[in-house]
Amino acid sequence: MADNAKPRANTLQVLRHMANRLRIHSIRATCASRSGHPTSCCSAAEIMSVLFFHTMRYKQTEPEHPDNDRFILSKGHAAPILYAAWAELGIISESDLLNWRKINCDLEGHPTPRLSFVDVATGSLGQGLGAACGMAYTGKYFDKASYRVFCLMGDGESSEGSVWEALDFASHYNLDNLVAVFDVNRLGQSGVTPLEHCTDVYQNRCEAFGWNTYLVDGHDVEGLCHAFWQATQVKNKPTAIVAKTFKGRGIPDIEDAENWHGKPMPKERADAIIKLIESQIQTNRNFIVKPPLEDSPQVSIRNIKMTCLPDYEVGDKIATQKAYGLALVKLGRANDRLIVLDGDAKNSTFSEIFKKEYPERFIECVMAEQNMVSVALGCATRDRTVAFISTLAACLTRAFDQIRMGAISQTNINLIGSHCGVSMGEEGSSQMALEDLAMFRSIPNCTVFYPSDAISAEHAVYLAASTKGMCFIRTSRQETAVIYTPQENFVIGQARVIRHSVNDKVTVIGAGVTLHEALAAAADLSQQGISIRVIDPFTIKPLDAATIISSAKATGGRVITVEDHYREGGLGEAVCTAVSGEPDILVHQLAVSGVPQSGKPGELLDMFGISARHIIAAVKYTLMN
Amino acid sequence: MADNAKPRANTLQVLRHMANRLRIHSIRATCASRSGHPTSCCSAAEIMSVLFFHTMRYKQTEPEHPDNDRFILSKGHAAPILYAAWAELGIISESDLLNWRKINCDLEGHPTPRLSFVDVATGSLGQGLGAACGMAYTGKYFDKASYRVFCLMGDGESSEGSVWEALDFASHYNLDNLVAVFDVNRLGQSGVTPLEHCTDVYQNRCEAFGWNTYLVDGHDVEGLCHAFWQATQVKNKPTAIVAKTFKGRGIPDIEDAENWHGKPMPKERADAIIKLIESQIQTNRNFIVKPPLEDSPQVSIRNIKMTCLPDYEVGDKIATQKAYGLALVKLGRANDRLIVLDGDAKNSTFSEIFKKEYPERFIECVMAEQNMVSVALGCATRDRTVAFISTLAACLTRAFDQIRMGAISQTNINLIGSHCGVSMGEEGSSQMALEDLAMFRSIPNCTVFYPSDAISAEHAVYLAASTKGMCFIRTSRQETAVIYTPQENFVIGQARVIRHSVNDKVTVIGAGVTLHEALAAAADLSQQGISIRVIDPFTIKPLDAATIISSAKATGGRVITVEDHYREGGLGEAVCTAVSGEPDILVHQLAVSGVPQSGKPGELLDMFGISARHIIAAVKYTLMN
Repeated sequence: MADNAKPRANTLQVLRHMANRLRIHSIRATCASRSGHPTSCCSAAEIMSVLFFHTMRYKQTEPEHPDNDRFILSKGHAAPILYAAWAELGIISESDLLNWRKINCDLEGHPTPRLSFVDVATGSLGQGLGAACGMAYTGKYFDKASYRVFCLMGDGESSEGSVWEALDFASHYNLDNLVAVFDVNRLGQSGVTPLEHCTDVYQNRCEAFGWNTYLVDGHDVEGLCHAFWQATQVKNKPTAIVAKTFKGRGIPDIEDAENWHGKPMPKERADAIIKLIESQIQTNRNFIVKPPLEDSPQVSIRNIKMTCLPDYEVGDKIATQKAYGLALVKLGRANDRLIVLDGDAKNSTFSEIFKKEYPERFIECVMAEQNMVSVALGCATRDRTVAFISTLAACLTRAFDQIRMGAISQTNINLIGSHCGVSMGEEGSSQMALEDLAMFRSIPNCTVFYPSDAISAEHAVYLAASTKGMCFIRTSRQETAVIYTPQENFVIGQARVIRHSVNDKVTVIGAGVTLHEALAAAADLSQQGISIRVIDPFTIKPLDAATIISSAKATGGRVITVEDHYREGGLGEAVCTAVSGEPDILVHQLAVSGVPQSGKPGELLDMFGISARHIIAAVKYTLMN
Repeated sequence: MADNAKPRANTLQVLRHMANRLRIHSIRATCASRSGHPTSCCSAAEIMSVLFFHTMRYKQTEPEHPDNDRFILSKGHAAPILYAAWAELGIISESDLLNWRKINCDLEGHPTPRLSFVDVATGSLGQGLGAACGMAYTGKYFDKASYRVFCLMGDGESSEGSVWEALDFASHYNLDNLVAVFDVNRLGQSGVTPLEHCTDVYQNRCEAFGWNTYLVDGHDVEGLCHAFWQATQVKNKPTAIVAKTFKGRGIPDIEDAENWHGKPMPKERADAIIKLIESQIQTNRNFIVKPPLEDSPQVSIRNIKMTCLPDYEVGDKIATQKAYGLALVKLGRANDRLIVLDGDAKNSTFSEIFKKEYPERFIECVMAEQNMVSVALGCATRDRTVAFISTLAACLTRAFDQIRMGAISQTNINLIGSHCGVSMGEEGSSQMALEDLAMFRSIPNCTVFYPSDAISAEHAVYLAASTKGMCFIRTSRQETAVIYTPQENFVIGQARVIRHSVNDKVTVIGAGVTLHEALAAAADLSQQGISIRVIDPFTIKPLDAATIISSAKATGGRVITVEDHYREGGLGEAVCTAVSGEPDILVHQLAVSGVPQSGKPGELLDMFGISARHIIAAVKYTLMN
């Protein structure tokens, strides 16, 4: 510990020189790729050196080990210096470093988990600290382990509100195992940052947000070592280290100069620059990486299976969003690493049912949806937890960028959006999710569930818990009848044909409340001697194209889709696309057009053309054409 | 002014009693609708009374007058108390108040500009202050007028990072005509807020963010009057009034109690509650609304037309994102109310060209995309400016919720997203927009431009400036050849058939870089004796279904779409939907699947199946089937 608090001169010399080695790697790599951000690397060289070669505790050869301290490079454009550190640690080769950004190389322009030492993808700025919060929360409260979490941020990205959401979260939950480093190098992408080198303002803001803070010279390895050590002594508060640095540090004429963001060194100057930096390296003394304390519990989040059948009977009336809350509790019983996050909506999303049963596994994230998603991403890294997030589906649009980055992060988090569509009623358009299917369908590898009753909702929750990639479950506020028996089996990508006969003239595809409207329409039409087939897709992505096509063919090629969502990007377009390779299948879309408004659910379904009455009219119209 | 600083006792009495009248209206309205948030109204009653009947200056009968002080109810769920104020002012009827949230009433569950006194829709929390910043910026720098801007916020919503982005913006730009009121009532939707009644923490945070602040008792009209007056005396700083209040103030047993969020008073108790509040009203003395200073300039943002043709020649190589920057300058010359906002990406989006020419009309919004969109919304209210926002298209996902609310706000702002698709190259997936078309297509009344050369990009900019509703222009980083002549005319919803002959066997639809890949494929196929028709849709929404269908029919019903975007929600799905009512048209989609990575643009187009080579293969495959 003594060496931690006040490192020996030898240690400091190694760290100084390592910083320069990292600089050289960064300059070389960006010269090789003729792109990248060497000046953003150079400002962080001493910080990286001290963190990786003095402060952090981890297994050098096992970057993913659960006991390791975590590191997140929130300023993802400084990727080369992260790669440089791991090159020094022997995890990647120096030749790979020169190959970064090439199509056949895992070292991408910004870090992604294609690399063993990257937990979450960064590059969309201002997101790293939220993920770090999730890791630190997991370390402190779920793992109750010694590992610490370090997040390196740029000053420019601190303009992102998500950073302040994360700062608020970390102090509220006393995350004393979390250290944020602000690399205040004064220069953003296109000019000076608003606060330039006013490090005291950063410090005041962090303190106002409840953090322990240190102001340091970010190029002074001794000061950095001391600050990181001090942080370990502080209880119940996260620590922010505000480091005054210079962009392009160590490069003559370029250090602290504007217009050098994202530019490699000019070819003709690179060698001289590297020589100059090399000339300051006077030691080859080896570093020693401190091993971690091995006190993380062994956990298993595999084999999550439904052990008892859903407890509903056909005809029971229950909202799918309530069924979600009830299913969470069962799932929580089945696996003790299931955690639930909510954004001050737990009494609407019904996640409060889980909170009552398992308060220690519930994280109240208040109204900060961006941070909530990032925290979940962090919690779910290294397979430490199975994370479910719930809030109003409309509020999830707030976190689209975090969700997008979640896909790049290869995360398995599950998002549940309640109160979808106009059928949520009186609150009006701001509260109605009508673009959530478009949003989640556009996310690679995201499974999109849209359960239509409590039984399928419960299955969706179980399937989401055990499915790779992100999952989204769209739930509804209206009470709808249970239509499946408890024995029914649900499979991702497998639709259910709920109503069919040999005389079916049209296939109608609905989901959620519109499936019930379709069933009402079918009953009414049946009285009039018209049979229709009704399909519940269960998952909108992947969509069961085979069942839809065979049903369409069996019903004269006539398909009607009906959805409580905007026309674009939802169920209807998914169906149009699924049948686009088939001749003679015509699709008629019923969907919400234009901005809706307040009203009673039934009135709104009718006003926006997606009620049983409109389905009946569409069926008749389709049959006439 | 004396009465402003220290109001007479009579004035104070009127304000106290007006607060109670507003409470009663709010309770009655929410009882009538059996939904809504009366307790959230009651905490704000004195604040609303003082603002509307003492502090603000406006024309009582002309809520939209440009000289009026602005008011934004950021805590939109307290809508009834806003409606109540305007009922007292005679703009809406008391009977309408009891009709709110009904399908035939403009008084929606949360405020929208269907009402003359609402500039921007609220209800998605944490967004009001950003719009208020835009109004205040416009007042101070563009209008150079006396009107002031007031924003009433809840404490719960201050957890949203967007609020801190706005606080940062306002102090950076010295918006001393802006007052934010924090209604700190201690209770969120589902429980106590993290900071409860620690008003000093709110104050510290606001001060750390550069604001002038006052702590007040939010139920003391005298203190409120004084604080609002003091705010007028402060130069170069915005003012935050942190008001300690009680949720449900004035309602016995419900005041400051949990579990009363979003709940109307129980029917059986409502009368007694209203009587009790009524008993505290002892005056019918009339209020006087102070008229505004009439010093806003007359402005016109109509009739924006292209007065000189684009200055490119066929074959010139230029990126559409650069053509955007150049077009802005021409447009800026044509209309002096054109303003441009950017998020520290001006050297990438090329908006810096405009900044150099018109620095006084450029707003640097730094890396705070949510706030940037909200600021633009505010700037564009009351038709004061034509606002263009640009940043990397991927970064616009950060502001999806603000964009969504923009549609509800009936805004006309224009958003430009650069660096779309995998063709942006080495930076990697975090920087590539591949879901932006899905996002913007899902926005009601949003026109989505996807220009394929510099000429059409310039036309898109002009059309966006004069088109109602939001517009999105997707621009590309790669230099591509100019394919249109300067004389060409572009119309929204009108595609161009760029290459056609009577022998065309397949219709290929591309946009941006993929249109050029399609043209390369066409040239190659032509050598092999295969003619294809090539279509540039110009706008993806509205899509020119008629041209696509007639071309498809002329080419044997064979259509191939090719896009630098994910498969879901983009061009391909739009085309599938457009032809879904036509038999015998088959669509084959080429689009990006899975998370991409770093690489050279050409390599990536090929790796993700959207290069000329893949189009050629798809044409041949289509012809074989």
